[in-house]
Amino acid sequence: MNHRIPSAGLRRDAPAALLHDLSRRFGDAFSTARAVCEQHGRDESPFDVPPPAGVVFCSCTEDVAEAVRLCAAHGVPVIAFGAGSSLEGQLLAVQGGITLDLTRMNQVLEVVAEDMLATVQAGVTRLQLNDELRHSGLFFPIDPGADATLGGMTATRASGTNAVRYGTMRENVLALTVVLADGSVVRTGTRARKSSAGYDLTRLFVGSEGTLGIVTEITLRLHPQPQAVAAAVCSFAQVAQAVDCTIELIQAAVPIARCELMDAHAVRSVNAHDHLGLPEQPLLLMEFHGSPAGVREQAQTAQQIAAAHGGSDFAWADTPEERTRLWKARHHAYLSALQTRPGCRCVTTDTCVPISRLAESIQETVVEADAAGLPYFIVGHVGDGNFHVGYLIDPQRPAERELAEELNARLVRRALRLGGTCSGEHGVGLHKQQFLREEAGDAAIALMRLLKQALDPRAILNPGKIFD
Amino acid sequence: MNHRIPSAGLRRDAPAALLHDLSRRFGDAFSTARAVCEQHGRDESPFDVPPPAGVVFCSCTEDVAEAVRLCAAHGVPVIAFGAGSSLEGQLLAVQGGITLDLTRMNQVLEVVAEDMLATVQAGVTRLQLNDELRHSGLFFPIDPGADATLGGMTATRASGTNAVRYGTMRENVLALTVVLADGSVVRTGTRARKSSAGYDLTRLFVGSEGTLGIVTEITLRLHPQPQAVAAAVCSFAQVAQAVDCTIELIQAAVPIARCELMDAHAVRSVNAHDHLGLPEQPLLLMEFHGSPAGVREQAQTAQQIAAAHGGSDFAWADTPEERTRLWKARHHAYLSALQTRPGCRCVTTDTCVPISRLAESIQETVVEADAAGLPYFIVGHVGDGNFHVGYLIDPQRPAERELAEELNARLVRRALRLGGTCSGEHGVGLHKQQFLREEAGDAAIALMRLLKQALDPRAILNPGKIFD
Repeated sequence: MNHRIPSAGLRRDAPAALLHDLSRRFGDAFSTARAVCEQHGRDESPFDVPPPAGVVFCSCTEDVAEAVRLCAAHGVPVIAFGAGSSLEGQLLAVQGGITLDLTRMNQVLEVVAEDMLATVQAGVTRLQLNDELRHSGLFFPIDPGADATLGGMTATRASGTNAVRYGTMRENVLALTVVLADGSVVRTGTRARKSSAGYDLTRLFVGSEGTLGIVTEITLRLHPQPQAVAAAVCSFAQVAQAVDCTIELIQAAVPIARCELMDAHAVRSVNAHDHLGLPEQPLLLMEFHGSPAGVREQAQTAQQIAAAHGGSDFAWADTPEERTRLWKARHHAYLSALQTRPGCRCVTTDTCVPISRLAESIQETVVEADAAGLPYFIVGHVGDGNFHVGYLIDPQRPAERELAEELNARLVRRALRLGGTCSGEHGVGLHKQQFLREEAGDAAIALMRLLKQALDPRAILNPGKIFD
Repeated sequence: MNHRIPSAGLRRDAPAALLHDLSRRFGDAFSTARAVCEQHGRDESPFDVPPPAGVVFCSCTEDVAEAVRLCAAHGVPVIAFGAGSSLEGQLLAVQGGITLDLTRMNQVLEVVAEDMLATVQAGVTRLQLNDELRHSGLFFPIDPGADATLGGMTATRASGTNAVRYGTMRENVLALTVVLADGSVVRTGTRARKSSAGYDLTRLFVGSEGTLGIVTEITLRLHPQPQAVAAAVCSFAQVAQAVDCTIELIQAAVPIARCELMDAHAVRSVNAHDHLGLPEQPLLLMEFHGSPAGVREQAQTAQQIAAAHGGSDFAWADTPEERTRLWKARHHAYLSALQTRPGCRCVTTDTCVPISRLAESIQETVVEADAAGLPYFIVGHVGDGNFHVGYLIDPQRPAERELAEELNARLVRRALRLGGTCSGEHGVGLHKQQFLREEAGDAAIALMRLLKQALDPRAILNPGKIFD
């Protein structure tokens, strides 16, 4: 059964003439092999959609521009593809078309340490970038869990565990190279930290999910590797206590670098997967960055606040190895949970609310999820008011899927009532279109459509995403 | 003589029928009195442009929407007006039309302290907002010097002295209410700190200078009033030393809250205007925010770095009163300088470069300015790579104006060569249109025009600004 896909428009066939042109231009870097197309026809979303008609493996901006020009000439959709880790169906060829695989565009083009910036091709992944920065004294903080490409992270306005301190892709992209719907190339932004020179074209493309242009190069802000880092876990009897602790940390302006919630379900599965001995209770996983004295001060404040909310003693991860082990486990929460129910798929939610409404948002969600009886887990970048519920469903049982979607809908509508958003960091894709309409309202959706029509009048750039 | 205004399009007369309609709808809140129109026909830019045909004093979003609808029906331009403090000609009625004065929209609609946000009407000024926040434990950091309205600051993507720590209007606007070209009203954003739900409409309007819509309400991020604040001045024999000190402070990741340069000319005039006894040498005016221990640590690091660059001992401003006196003096730099040459006007530059290129950018500028012989002063938000040269010209001497513009052009082109921007925080308006073209390039300008045409097909929203 198809996972309720919004009406995403008709599929458009790629004519033989286009396949011929692509083949002639790209040779072996163009493939229509079934396995290749299928591999590029799925992401981490639960949708089943037929694959694209072909895949171009692009090596440079000009490859992307040429592929877009050829597809534009035939009115055929083009979809950019990076790590394939998007969660809302962003990569799926719902209207058919040609996928542009950007993973060969994996060059870090330049690191300017003294200006704390780097320019990368869109296929560079976040771990690759940080590996190349290892000896520079700098790092790139945005961390969505998956080793996503920086192009994909730009396209979905990704964030993750460090956003509470360092911001999201919105705050950390300085400049872009983008291929437009007619195959022309535009550069946005400069290397200056700030600018008021004209419309903010950079932010127009950040989060546009490949529907306004295809990002091929990105200039990113880097941050100094902190002098000192401390990480700790702290357990609580109830999720509510962990959340109240988070709220007070944020309101007390502790410049915490990471503040992650895992509920008891999530802890249990990462314990099993990563052989950790964490208390199987709700916990906060925190990290502090700064000078040695600053980190000590933050940690003391956090300990006091946690204790006041019934938190256990902090368990410190003192060495880089222990910290890595903990954060890897946190990032394995999704995969670990999948393993607790063999054959299951995960329906993941992604609401973000103002911090003062986080407690009620999570508490009501827990009550509903417990009552529904579906296996689930909760993890969250709670310092931002953002959390994810993963409902583990048996894909053979449509009723479970329906139930998970019903729970998600209630969760999203609660977030909207509380002044929040349907998507903290995963984007809209196919899955959130109805919720985006409810959140933004008709006037804002009409404005988004106007932008889409202006920039992509033939609707060839990842059509059927964000809105139908 | 007109200060070279770019070709800004033909003036469009406001027909009698429109004036009649506006008068009937707005009564006394609509004026065509010459003094009122003239008062709304100038800003802090050096351009002389005929005033608008009339002024509507709006009290709410619906007033703005209705005024826009009436003007749209006649194809007549509408220009939003706040404090009148823009520097690049943003407010001038170059194509005629009706000015909407938003200063009666001066209500702080809501402060949500626990979520650190406030919603204000567009006519609220930054000082008014901070006054209303006095007892909340929070403040709004963006500080462009003038007591600008938050609507105007949104429209020009303003920043100022605190941006090095707290970001600009780009980072600190969460959500907007905007009247579009057809008089419809759109709301963008939510109260969530982050979102990946669709196109970033908020950032589309921030910095659009009233050319895509008129911002009527703004939800802003607030920040905790720091536990401890310390301010200090430190003098240097040469501007270059002060700049090198700044570069090292930023590269050392000192989370300095303000780092302002004043050259000897600027110090001399604020000494005279504000009766200060500052050494008449280049100086850095710094402020540190944090916990008491954190501030001490930052200040120690800064002192070490300053000493290594030949900085004098820090002179501390220990009390809030002393700090206020210093920062007022800093903000008086512009007015103080004007008083050093009675009858003069000021041609102000606004480049921003990557921090590593700041020294050469300022040094070459100083050499050129000294050689040219025009009186000038330099102030700068140097922690961001942003500085302003003010050339004090006799408006009766066209040659001085030409010379100042020639110096500005050389400064801007140097900034562009160094990877910077023609406008750090003042916007484009009339003055920077040619430079924006050089900075952004034809493709980006074409894209900006496409957005303008999509959102304002009849070009009634502040026409002739940003591009012609």
